[in-house]
Amino acid sequence: MNYRLIFKLIGNVLRIEALFMLFPLLVSFIYGGGDHPAFLWSILISAAVGTILAKLNPKDKNFRVKDAFVVAGFSWIFLSLFGALPFYFSGYFNSFVDCVFESISGFTTTGSSILTNVEVLPKGILFWRSFSHWIGGMGILMFMIAVMPSINASSVNLLRAESTGPAPDKIVPRIQETAKIMYMIYFAMTVILVVFLKIAGLPIFDSMLNAFSVAGTGGFSNMNASIGGYNNIAAEIIMTVFMFLFGISFSLYFALLGRKFEKFIKDTELKIYFGVVIVSILIITINISGLYNGIWEALRHSSFQVSSIISTTGFATTDFNLWPTLSKSILVFLMFTGCCAGSTGGGMKLIRFIILFKAAKVELDKIFHPGSVKAVSINGKKISNDIVFKTSLFFFIYFAIFFVSLLLISIDNKDIVSSATAVIASLSNVGPGLGTVGPTGNYAAFSSFSKIVFSFCMIAGRLEFFPVLVLFTPHVWKRRVIK
Amino acid sequence: MNYRLIFKLIGNVLRIEALFMLFPLLVSFIYGGGDHPAFLWSILISAAVGTILAKLNPKDKNFRVKDAFVVAGFSWIFLSLFGALPFYFSGYFNSFVDCVFESISGFTTTGSSILTNVEVLPKGILFWRSFSHWIGGMGILMFMIAVMPSINASSVNLLRAESTGPAPDKIVPRIQETAKIMYMIYFAMTVILVVFLKIAGLPIFDSMLNAFSVAGTGGFSNMNASIGGYNNIAAEIIMTVFMFLFGISFSLYFALLGRKFEKFIKDTELKIYFGVVIVSILIITINISGLYNGIWEALRHSSFQVSSIISTTGFATTDFNLWPTLSKSILVFLMFTGCCAGSTGGGMKLIRFIILFKAAKVELDKIFHPGSVKAVSINGKKISNDIVFKTSLFFFIYFAIFFVSLLLISIDNKDIVSSATAVIASLSNVGPGLGTVGPTGNYAAFSSFSKIVFSFCMIAGRLEFFPVLVLFTPHVWKRRVIK
Repeated sequence: MNYRLIFKLIGNVLRIEALFMLFPLLVSFIYGGGDHPAFLWSILISAAVGTILAKLNPKDKNFRVKDAFVVAGFSWIFLSLFGALPFYFSGYFNSFVDCVFESISGFTTTGSSILTNVEVLPKGILFWRSFSHWIGGMGILMFMIAVMPSINASSVNLLRAESTGPAPDKIVPRIQETAKIMYMIYFAMTVILVVFLKIAGLPIFDSMLNAFSVAGTGGFSNMNASIGGYNNIAAEIIMTVFMFLFGISFSLYFALLGRKFEKFIKDTELKIYFGVVIVSILIITINISGLYNGIWEALRHSSFQVSSIISTTGFATTDFNLWPTLSKSILVFLMFTGCCAGSTGGGMKLIRFIILFKAAKVELDKIFHPGSVKAVSINGKKISNDIVFKTSLFFFIYFAIFFVSLLLISIDNKDIVSSATAVIASLSNVGPGLGTVGPTGNYAAFSSFSKIVFSFCMIAGRLEFFPVLVLFTPHVWKRRVIK
Repeated sequence: MNYRLIFKLIGNVLRIEALFMLFPLLVSFIYGGGDHPAFLWSILISAAVGTILAKLNPKDKNFRVKDAFVVAGFSWIFLSLFGALPFYFSGYFNSFVDCVFESISGFTTTGSSILTNVEVLPKGILFWRSFSHWIGGMGILMFMIAVMPSINASSVNLLRAESTGPAPDKIVPRIQETAKIMYMIYFAMTVILVVFLKIAGLPIFDSMLNAFSVAGTGGFSNMNASIGGYNNIAAEIIMTVFMFLFGISFSLYFALLGRKFEKFIKDTELKIYFGVVIVSILIITINISGLYNGIWEALRHSSFQVSSIISTTGFATTDFNLWPTLSKSILVFLMFTGCCAGSTGGGMKLIRFIILFKAAKVELDKIFHPGSVKAVSINGKKISNDIVFKTSLFFFIYFAIFFVSLLLISIDNKDIVSSATAVIASLSNVGPGLGTVGPTGNYAAFSSFSKIVFSFCMIAGRLEFFPVLVLFTPHVWKRRVIK
């Protein structure tokens, strides 16, 4: 491993994080609340450690695939550890584990909280929580769209054949180009959302925080009752639409900018995404109509919740924990699937389900046409057997980690529904689950050990496992000497 | 499709079933109870339909892979439909759907019941329920060990390289040879179990019925409180051991008969099976020790339950629904894994987990050694990429069917734990789940629609999906004309 280079890059990440912390510092100066020392200290520490690490001078200039994986895994961990400092210094959290949990939940755009009352927090801390979603969403866009395809046959690169160029050195300028445009789209959509929410009647501070959460598909709210606390139907509808939009692959917005409308319209994953959302909304609306005043209110809650869960945002306007089993089962199913690859959302991604469904169909067809050499194809492009295999292996790894985590957190002896959905909601970066971790609940009652397990799940799920799993191999730890 | 040949074979299956029904007929004559007309009519109908079908004269003598799949799927369906006749004629069941559910649950060796009180049933009907487990266990042994490897790269043939000969015609005599020896082992182990249970103090009738259930890893009991109803510790311990034994691949007993002790001892799946059982028992024993009088009683219940669930038998000596979440989570996990391939048990089979764990490890290693061409190997034999891929696809199909079934039965609006574990227990042919379908519950409260979904799950899980899924393809239904 090229540790010097790895830690140099992480140093740069920490320096950028220190810069980002200037925003909540500004907020705490504007609104008061007394949390500015927390940010001043955190900025100082992050900048100092970051600068020391960034000064490392690697003799070996080679950046290998394995180094990229380790950088990805460590980046999220360090980002979260230093991002937990403002929480810790603020004094509003019970323990450092709680701070790290909240920070990881932020940067992984999960949005599950160990806080039982967020409304007492000073504005600077509230801002930092939501802002970490926005930074995390931006990071994952960069990571999944630009970095992953060049280091691994991720399913994402199916969607953008242009990034699967032959040699890594040719990709680098394209990565920077791509990243710049993605960031512009991300930034523009966030600004539009802030404006819309402001027009709908939310205060500017709340408009910004909720826009950060929606853009990163996070889910931290500055209200204890989540979005339901605003009682603002216009804002709910705006968020319903934008949560859905942030669940779409950004490469498709890229295509729209390039006036490739056909690519947008004919995209298989987008069609399935749209179909799943519509069908889920319809079934749930009928299923819950008896619980609300008429079909329109049912439709409003149903569409908000479907959009919130499938995009893995995790906002709530109502307590879906009280819904009938069919509606709850659909929501849990959507927690697994998640939205489109190449978006800021989490979950397994619909494209993986599409690939595996097609692969199963090909296998069935082979029984009737034994000589057939049919292959899986998406958007008219053949998918290599290697990618199909890795996709199905991804599925296994998801469930393997799910089961191991469930067994570990079961030691806390919470009921099995809360336990199981808490793990799913962490792995898929949704936030709320059912039972005690439902929309009106939180993760406060779990032990520190369980919170560490959840933290692991959030990062593992966010980075789609491999960058985190490599950190557990002896390869990474064998030769610790920094050379 | 060679429909004439397919239905000729199914005709033979029905004639054999009519012969098997002579046993419960004999029982009802011996013990009385008035259920002999139910069997007489059922035998008459099955024999008549079977004989008519068996008289079909296929012009096309070719038996293709696709025909084998369809025969497998239809065999279990017809076996169950005609096997439901005695239940129907007995008058103890509410509807024909209930009878078919109970019959499918019997032949697939699941053991879930829609009956709320089995103790009122006449002895002939009780015998037929348990006997169907024994027939089903025998059938699945034949199907998985002899038929599947010759028609599909099932994971089973990993264990017995000798059966993966080149041409099908060479396999046929070996199949018959193998099947004969397997049946002898199955028969001998059943007889030994009957004798042991009799010595332990159970009546001969109960000894036989429970032996049928254990041998087929079924789980129907003639007591409402399952095995707990006997209050016979010796019988419980004997069953604990035998449930475990019937979860071992029969090809390993075959190896033992051939004095290949090393093959037995060094088998990877067996080692993992043993390890999983021991670790599960230890954790659960500690976890539940507070609920019972001392550690020994906890150990007794824990080992019985682990053996019962991992072998997918489904017997109970205590209500594990009341156990702490950790213990319940372990049991649910064991429902998924099941035991060894090539046994009479269900579930996904441990060998699949072993293959996929190794495959994930190979992928991780590739990150550090990009040029490596390492492959997965089990018991020193390389596993082809095709089998590894099909194994991971199997995993996806299991969960896809799980989710679709869960959504369908959620319409009944039972609580989500009962709903989810009912589907798992059906797919893995376990029987009891948690909640209302726990060891003290049953499937009576579900709608007929849900019972049909469960029935589908039981057969699909039993035949490891493909033989059932092919029945849903247009290929099977396109040309209905029997040629």
